[in-house]
Amino acid sequence: MNKKQLFEQIKNKKSFLCVGLDPVLENIPKHLFKYDNPVLEFNKQIIDATNDLCVAYKPNTAFFESMGLKGWDTLIKTWAHIPKDIFSIADAKRGDIGNTSAMYADAFFNEEKSGMSFDAITVAPYMGEDSVGPFLNHKDKWVILLALTSNAGHSDFQLHQTPEGKVYEEVIRISSKWSSSEQLMFVVGATRGAEFKNIRKLAPDNFLLVPGVGAQGGSLAEVCQHGLNNECGLLVNSGRSIIYASKAEDFAERAREEALKLQQEMEQILSSAHLI
Amino acid sequence: MNKKQLFEQIKNKKSFLCVGLDPVLENIPKHLFKYDNPVLEFNKQIIDATNDLCVAYKPNTAFFESMGLKGWDTLIKTWAHIPKDIFSIADAKRGDIGNTSAMYADAFFNEEKSGMSFDAITVAPYMGEDSVGPFLNHKDKWVILLALTSNAGHSDFQLHQTPEGKVYEEVIRISSKWSSSEQLMFVVGATRGAEFKNIRKLAPDNFLLVPGVGAQGGSLAEVCQHGLNNECGLLVNSGRSIIYASKAEDFAERAREEALKLQQEMEQILSSAHLI
Repeated sequence: MNKKQLFEQIKNKKSFLCVGLDPVLENIPKHLFKYDNPVLEFNKQIIDATNDLCVAYKPNTAFFESMGLKGWDTLIKTWAHIPKDIFSIADAKRGDIGNTSAMYADAFFNEEKSGMSFDAITVAPYMGEDSVGPFLNHKDKWVILLALTSNAGHSDFQLHQTPEGKVYEEVIRISSKWSSSEQLMFVVGATRGAEFKNIRKLAPDNFLLVPGVGAQGGSLAEVCQHGLNNECGLLVNSGRSIIYASKAEDFAERAREEALKLQQEMEQILSSAHLI
Repeated sequence: MNKKQLFEQIKNKKSFLCVGLDPVLENIPKHLFKYDNPVLEFNKQIIDATNDLCVAYKPNTAFFESMGLKGWDTLIKTWAHIPKDIFSIADAKRGDIGNTSAMYADAFFNEEKSGMSFDAITVAPYMGEDSVGPFLNHKDKWVILLALTSNAGHSDFQLHQTPEGKVYEEVIRISSKWSSSEQLMFVVGATRGAEFKNIRKLAPDNFLLVPGVGAQGGSLAEVCQHGLNNECGLLVNSGRSIIYASKAEDFAERAREEALKLQQEMEQILSSAHLI
């Protein structure tokens, strides 16, 4: 999916919601254990209940890998269940030397080889340009590079001052030379509200993937105040607060209710900004 | 495996060789395609032919993931074939917020959940302490943190100067507060020979995992000149130059010959340093 198509989806759905799929076996409703693959059934029902309210799904690969071979199978089948007009993100935080990143790109972008073809993958920037480039060789596929993350450890290295700026600012500035806003997004945590103004100066046109609204405590209004641009420019992720709104038989309905609340908030924000 | 046991293995085998398992379908010898899983057969024969000459194996997860579900199955079965007295490294370059890194730790360290229990995993440092901690909660398991990598892109962010030192130096200095040399190693590329002296000042006791000897052009002698410590302190990885020494029926023998050359060089180095 290209940038124009993504913005069209946002306008059509009046939403820039990304639903994070982080399935934990202990949180799967008990009644789903009658199915052969309860986690897959859970993901499918969440997707079916929310896909008119969101523009993206973001399965986090760690949660699937932790379940071994069956988990990887569930990841592939979850990807296959995401409607093709919805932006799909492999939240995988990969990145390695060039020949290895090319393999990761095959794993997540090349359906013929791996059984999956996500629209985007999250990538860690530490190894630099040749660790990112191989992902960008895939047409209309996106790299979502970690910039300023939502967790406590963000301050350990991302905020270090260098002669040109903080490390995370350097990540945005330098990586912007490798690609355009047509294929490059940045991860900026919702818990970093005050920094969005600064980030928009460095990356005026790039979409930002914003985790941390909900369970991690970030504020949607604060994110949008400085984060919105004239193509929306935001994909705001909410995971646990949607998918685990209930752990009972009504989990899918309750997930929909939580997604709807966010969609309605987003509709107001888009409307106030004259984007819809 | 703990540090003392690792050093014992190094002394017994007179080797600090790590064999990188980066299987690419195009490089698998043709005669192996009679097997149901040619890649697994390739890995097994490489392991069988070299395991008295090396102290570690390092499957690179990207190469397995690129082959989809069958690839993940091959990774699990390759791990299972590594003798339990040999240090096993999941070269996965993972790292995410705490609850997610805990899932990655299960994926690679918790056999009951995932089918695999490597001794160590490579981790990207960008997200800081809480992205590394969950791996360290597993007894006798190791984090091998990216410090100064072997690829061209190492200069994009790792060498940025901060008030306290270069970014990679900060990674070593700060992460050394999170754990000891009993569970924390660093990745330092063999192509960074001149920096080893400096790195040993920052990390006198930590093992260093050193990729880049062979196909990437690093020199073993240069690495050892400043990298050795009184417990050896080095795991030197060689991948492609061993496993693809031949792509014909003699591939395992030729892999052994290449591994033997490195082991013999290492034996001389260990002997000159009075470590054996």
